Amino acid sequence: MSGTGYWIDGRPGNCLDPAERMAQYGDGLFETLRVSNGVAEYADRHLQRLQAGCARLRLVFDDWQGLDTELRTHARECADGVIKIILGRAAGGRGYRFAPDQAVTRILSTHPLPDMPHPYGEEGVQLCLCELRLGLQPALAGIKHLNRLEQVLARAEWQQEYAEGLMLDSDGRLVEGTMSNLFLVREGVLLTPRLDVCGVAGVMRSVLMDLAAAQGVEVRCQTVWPDDLASVEEVFVCNSLIGIWPVAAIGKQHTYVPGAVTRMLQAALSRDDRTRTGRWYNE
Amino acid sequence: MSGTGYWIDGRPGNCLDPAERMAQYGDGLFETLRVSNGVAEYADRHLQRLQAGCARLRLVFDDWQGLDTELRTHARECADGVIKIILGRAAGGRGYRFAPDQAVTRILSTHPLPDMPHPYGEEGVQLCLCELRLGLQPALAGIKHLNRLEQVLARAEWQQEYAEGLMLDSDGRLVEGTMSNLFLVREGVLLTPRLDVCGVAGVMRSVLMDLAAAQGVEVRCQTVWPDDLASVEEVFVCNSLIGIWPVAAIGKQHTYVPGAVTRMLQAALSRDDRTRTGRWYNE
Repeated sequence: MSGTGYWIDGRPGNCLDPAERMAQYGDGLFETLRVSNGVAEYADRHLQRLQAGCARLRLVFDDWQGLDTELRTHARECADGVIKIILGRAAGGRGYRFAPDQAVTRILSTHPLPDMPHPYGEEGVQLCLCELRLGLQPALAGIKHLNRLEQVLARAEWQQEYAEGLMLDSDGRLVEGTMSNLFLVREGVLLTPRLDVCGVAGVMRSVLMDLAAAQGVEVRCQTVWPDDLASVEEVFVCNSLIGIWPVAAIGKQHTYVPGAVTRMLQAALSRDDRTRTGRWYNE
Repeated sequence: MSGTGYWIDGRPGNCLDPAERMAQYGDGLFETLRVSNGVAEYADRHLQRLQAGCARLRLVFDDWQGLDTELRTHARECADGVIKIILGRAAGGRGYRFAPDQAVTRILSTHPLPDMPHPYGEEGVQLCLCELRLGLQPALAGIKHLNRLEQVLARAEWQQEYAEGLMLDSDGRLVEGTMSNLFLVREGVLLTPRLDVCGVAGVMRSVLMDLAAAQGVEVRCQTVWPDDLASVEEVFVCNSLIGIWPVAAIGKQHTYVPGAVTRMLQAALSRDDRTRTGRWYNE
């Protein structure tokens, strides 16, 4: 189990220039990876998402080989824990405008694993439905950028009474959890919300879509409404740290029992080779 | 004219903890004040907006007297320039959740005045209409928070060919400029877009609403559509640094001549006592 440490542009240190645009405007991206037995799980998919985010934000970062090496080195030393990577547009003037060739600052940090109660994966979790709705922003949808006030405020709607909160967009569609993606199972088909107008397309979500397809389960990425919660047999949420949490209840309205598709995917995930190359899906 | 300097929690320094939530999530607020002759202009209204923002983000900052003193001290030393204040939720764990009593980190920085071509205030400016639309987020509307990727991407839509870009919201309403608020004049009435679902309620906007009312001009805060641009006689944009820029053209479609209401407000602003107490309006 690792402790916490920070490396800025490859050098150990806790000193960030306050003029950095990540601090001024949230002008950047991040990734949170689980490290197990010295391996950063699904590293290639995380780096793919980071590359897609750079293209979207016009961040000019080109040392992907160096970042990959840095990530693998720290994963070996960290053994079991969490690695977070931030890429942010470096300082440069005051104001929103940036130069096309503006430098990128890279922060890598290691953290202990969060406290994840073991029964969550077995017994399932209680979720709430958040009041705060996600604004529609196709330009930022899918990528994991640093403008996360919506999630910060949504997470403040409850304390410990729920494991996670689900969020609707401003048009009322069901999108995701504050820190997780959402899957539903209806008549054996795996459904997950489209993420083309808001939301974060999680790496674990891509992994599970691939694992389900490999098991012969039909996967549909589509619009999901809160009413759909009444007509599905299984619900689960996922992210790179928690894996799969079956959902036992959403608020007071909906209850579920972890079902066959959820259990099959949990088993497939536990067997999966987390060093394997795979594709990250943007929607 | 001042140079650039940073003070973190009152101490001079350029070393921000990378774990600070302003760098991790954009979890904070900012203010940009113009300093003239050693005075931070409209300081009370800026601090009012900061207080309103703290309430909205549940930032527990209580040293308003200390911040006020720090602001006035640096303004005296800076003489003419810009002071930026950031209040961000301090570091604490990984993840979106924050403690109700989590500390707040305060950054004050001084900057030289931006390059503001003199004829802009006289002859008027060319604006474009940005492609990127503002997402609807009532929870964040009005306040000046650090999640500014929408403005960063919108500002990247042009280089030097325009002075500013106007933004619509995702429902197509006209809201504001990337760094300024928008006013229109129709039949002698001053109109400005409502900012209850998105946008930043600028301090200069509040000042101008007060100055207009004091001059007997009717002021209406209302929904504005792009079609309204065809039926108004005067258009101007404003912020705390630029004051008032009359708009000479918006894209290729609309042209205007700086009119009587714009000129009257420019004159009233130039005469205004910028140390006077006044109210900041949230919509």
